[in-house]
Amino acid sequence: MDILSGSFSLTTSGRIELIDITAKVEKSLKENTCPDGLLYLFNPHTTAGLTINEGADPAVRQDICDGLQALVPADYPFRHAEGNSPAHIMATLCGSSLTIAMSEGRLVLGRWQRIFFSEFDGPRQRFVHWRLLS
Amino acid sequence: MDILSGSFSLTTSGRIELIDITAKVEKSLKENTCPDGLLYLFNPHTTAGLTINEGADPAVRQDICDGLQALVPADYPFRHAEGNSPAHIMATLCGSSLTIAMSEGRLVLGRWQRIFFSEFDGPRQRFVHWRLLS
Amino acid sequence: MDILSGSFSLTTSGRIELIDITAKVEKSLKENTCPDGLLYLFNPHTTAGLTINEGADPAVRQDICDGLQALVPADYPFRHAEGNSPAHIMATLCGSSLTIAMSEGRLVLGRWQRIFFSEFDGPRQRFVHWRLLS
Repeated sequence: MDILSGSFSLTTSGRIELIDITAKVEKSLKENTCPDGLLYLFNPHTTAGLTINEGADPAVRQDICDGLQALVPADYPFRHAEGNSPAHIMATLCGSSLTIAMSEGRLVLGRWQRIFFSEFDGPRQRFVHWRLLS
Repeated sequence: MDILSGSFSLTTSGRIELIDITAKVEKSLKENTCPDGLLYLFNPHTTAGLTINEGADPAVRQDICDGLQALVPADYPFRHAEGNSPAHIMATLCGSSLTIAMSEGRLVLGRWQRIFFSEFDGPRQRFVHWRLLS
Repeated sequence: MDILSGSFSLTTSGRIELIDITAKVEKSLKENTCPDGLLYLFNPHTTAGLTINEGADPAVRQDICDGLQALVPADYPFRHAEGNSPAHIMATLCGSSLTIAMSEGRLVLGRWQRIFFSEFDGPRQRFVHWRLLS
């Protein structure tokens, strides 16, 4: 098994937002050898996540953010003093890694799918690590 | 690393339902060489997901559907004009891929576990892509 | 591709709790050859899950448990006779497996990240299966 690896950074601008990182991921892969294989993406932060969802209509990512805020209780008597427990809960609900197949050097995504970095406690500078298995 | 790949389709019949696809997955693998390894399953749709849960009592999958509908707000003033924003939120909560170990040609699942396609905006024709790494 | 595999058990003590299993995972890997690669962790139970979140302040894991209980309806008229449908819903929300990169024999986790076994219907004896791909 060959493993290529790398990282990229991004700066989030809102407290809760989904940022389309598909182009950043594709750029990282283009700069490396890019055979068929599996791409693993990892978010090393505890108040953020990674998700795949619709990228065509920007209203969808806004609705996902609004929906998550509506369903995760904000006024629960949480114990963690930093006040960002809802962000930690959203991180567990969303998940911290993604695996995506590659075929002929391209990500195998559905027609409407894009890769999103899920910021739940921004704005912050964030990182995404990747590994390409082939 | 050897990678075998394939796809199968399924037709969902309800708006929100969990469909046991374990037999379809096993059939796909049986038609191919099937060493030990890791199986990767991917759902290319943005209003559906994949999950592992109990398959013995059909009431469990119904309760999961009912519970997801109860917790994701349906009457929030969503912006996406198609009206299926709750389905997109459920897709992010559920996740779009699964990884399952293989041992001697069989899926390594717990005693009560089965693999489910999670339809959140049906009925539709859907697809599942798979890759077997060994 | 080389695949090493193993399992470990743990005993949970509460009905809903997050248990830091990072040290158990590291111990399992130390007893085996441990090159760079990808570690796959799998939970074979249908009322439990695996998640990565903050390990520094124990209040965070308690807040995640409290938050999940607040958002998953407990008094919904569920059909499953065992009465643990909320635990099955939490299992689907949390996810049953994790993939974590290894580098020079160490888990690639963010500064505050730890690996947690998520018990949603304890106390019980539980198992975690792992595979190391390199």
